Amino acid sequence: MDPRVREHASVLVDWSARIEPGDDVVVSVGEGAHQLGVAVAEAIGERGANPVVTYGSDEIRASYLDAHDGEFAEDPDHELALYRNADSVLFLGGGRNTSEMADVPSETRKDYRRSRTGIREARMDTDWVSTQHPTRSLAQQAEMPYRAYRDFVYDAVLRDWKSLAAEMDRLKEILDAGDEVRLVKAETDLTMAIDGRTAVNSAASVAYDSHNLPSGEVFTAPFATEGTVLFDVPMTIDGKRVRDVRLTFEDGEVVDWSAEQGEAVVTDTIETDEGGRRLGELGIGMNRGIDRVTDNILFDEKMAETVHLALGRAYDANLPESESGNESAVHVDMLTDMSEDAELLVDGEVVQRNGRFRWEDGFADA
Amino acid sequence: MDPRVREHASVLVDWSARIEPGDDVVVSVGEGAHQLGVAVAEAIGERGANPVVTYGSDEIRASYLDAHDGEFAEDPDHELALYRNADSVLFLGGGRNTSEMADVPSETRKDYRRSRTGIREARMDTDWVSTQHPTRSLAQQAEMPYRAYRDFVYDAVLRDWKSLAAEMDRLKEILDAGDEVRLVKAETDLTMAIDGRTAVNSAASVAYDSHNLPSGEVFTAPFATEGTVLFDVPMTIDGKRVRDVRLTFEDGEVVDWSAEQGEAVVTDTIETDEGGRRLGELGIGMNRGIDRVTDNILFDEKMAETVHLALGRAYDANLPESESGNESAVHVDMLTDMSEDAELLVDGEVVQRNGRFRWEDGFADA
Repeated sequence: MDPRVREHASVLVDWSARIEPGDDVVVSVGEGAHQLGVAVAEAIGERGANPVVTYGSDEIRASYLDAHDGEFAEDPDHELALYRNADSVLFLGGGRNTSEMADVPSETRKDYRRSRTGIREARMDTDWVSTQHPTRSLAQQAEMPYRAYRDFVYDAVLRDWKSLAAEMDRLKEILDAGDEVRLVKAETDLTMAIDGRTAVNSAASVAYDSHNLPSGEVFTAPFATEGTVLFDVPMTIDGKRVRDVRLTFEDGEVVDWSAEQGEAVVTDTIETDEGGRRLGELGIGMNRGIDRVTDNILFDEKMAETVHLALGRAYDANLPESESGNESAVHVDMLTDMSEDAELLVDGEVVQRNGRFRWEDGFADA
Repeated sequence: MDPRVREHASVLVDWSARIEPGDDVVVSVGEGAHQLGVAVAEAIGERGANPVVTYGSDEIRASYLDAHDGEFAEDPDHELALYRNADSVLFLGGGRNTSEMADVPSETRKDYRRSRTGIREARMDTDWVSTQHPTRSLAQQAEMPYRAYRDFVYDAVLRDWKSLAAEMDRLKEILDAGDEVRLVKAETDLTMAIDGRTAVNSAASVAYDSHNLPSGEVFTAPFATEGTVLFDVPMTIDGKRVRDVRLTFEDGEVVDWSAEQGEAVVTDTIETDEGGRRLGELGIGMNRGIDRVTDNILFDEKMAETVHLALGRAYDANLPESESGNESAVHVDMLTDMSEDAELLVDGEVVQRNGRFRWEDGFADA
């Protein structure tokens, strides 16, 4: 076994999920994540916790959904009971075909999702963490050879998380104290209000209210957006390739938009509901282990020297208690490259220039 | 997909487990049973039942057990809650290495088993069924090519179960009415009392209190065993190969024994406890789809033209209510070939001769 599989398991169990002796853990093993499952089981055994191992197979899920008449039972008792009694849930993603669910009608998926609100809430109430084992299917999606893709994944996952968390805290402090963020680059000059909002230091650990491994971003919930922005990092939205999206905001709302490729899916997003026209998230990628786009949002949005904005739903963690932020049925992230001729300013002061933060070496000459 | 995989799933879901709309089902998918998992998910979807899919991986289990200090938590809440709220549990066996658990100390396995008594009971309280997908590993254990092994498995599983159940009922009636069974063949003349005991028609369906697919045996709980018996069908007990076991009984107890191969494990069984010296089961194989030994007790003990006897624990289903039969920590099945120069008699009347029952064509000349 590649020794990095065991290291991945240790980071997941100790840094991310903070598994303790006696914890009741659900481990969901993807079709291609068997090896990571073995390593995680070993780590859980060493910590003296209690695993139930589920099988996260897209092929099995698709086959079930496809055969079902669509009248799904509401939160089946046995599954609800499993998650209500769990302390942690570890999702080991990594399948064998990212298109396995492609022919399940989106209506069926939505109905299924809707029928399981209680189960999802119970799961979200645990110390859950989502990660991915490098599989050939994900390498293919990233247009990379498997060998190189494994290196990519482990560079992203096996960080010095403690030191990255400390660095991200500096940015969080600036954002928490600030009132306004401005992005300036080619075809982009965008201003967003952030006063009263709290940034999340997403340091890949439940201790930071961060549930993805890898993580490595600081995000908040902006509002009152004004100006234009170019998203020049290619991505996939709802299975469709999207390139060079341009948005213009007035009074916090998108008033004009275009895309070189995939404009229809951008339009669908914007026209979903009221909230689809407004931003729900401003995220700043800080994981320097992620140095390329791999068409996988779990990784892409944490890439250092990028910023992402999401149309749609805001996260509660960014909002003052009792205040509700942007509400929407969607949350669609789009990325812009900040590595060249680009500045991120907070209250008029440059915090990041050409991908370098002001506390980093080389910021002055950047 | 081999169309027989879907047929297997249908037999399992409809005939064996009697899955109904709305049932909460746990499906345990073995490492090599993915394809059957897909077909079972489809069948469950069609029936409108609700699956939780678990991953029955020996490698993950061994890795967990091996890493654990052995102080296992008693019936972890989340797992107990899952099974207490389930209507049915379907075990889709079929791994990738039958020796995967070989280096887990038997003490660890026993401690783990003991810590999960409540979970096991909750599982046994459901309409559970255990079956096996044909895998290369099981083909290897059977010393057969994979192609031929698949044919073997589907011949065993895809029976006309309704008609076999009716035939087995004839034998059950004879045993229920009878007081004594006698086996006569080379080096064998064994008499067992069965009066007051009830035979189980094990027709591979929860409707018959039968939880294995394939099944196809009628079994009861004998006592007061007298005489000698030769078990000439090779088998594996506790991972050890065993051949030509000879037992001599007096007053229901083994008083003398030998084996051409593996005598030590036979001795261990007999000396486990008081019940290890007595029979707990007499089973008569009636599945004509099983025409050879494959070193897999789920199949071997149902093979037509064989009889098996188990040293150790008797099943409650065979006993009058409030009566406890033979009690023991072990239950070890051993087989004898009844196809040649062999008779099975009930109260002195020949019921089976050279593998043919008296209601079958050819019995007169057998």
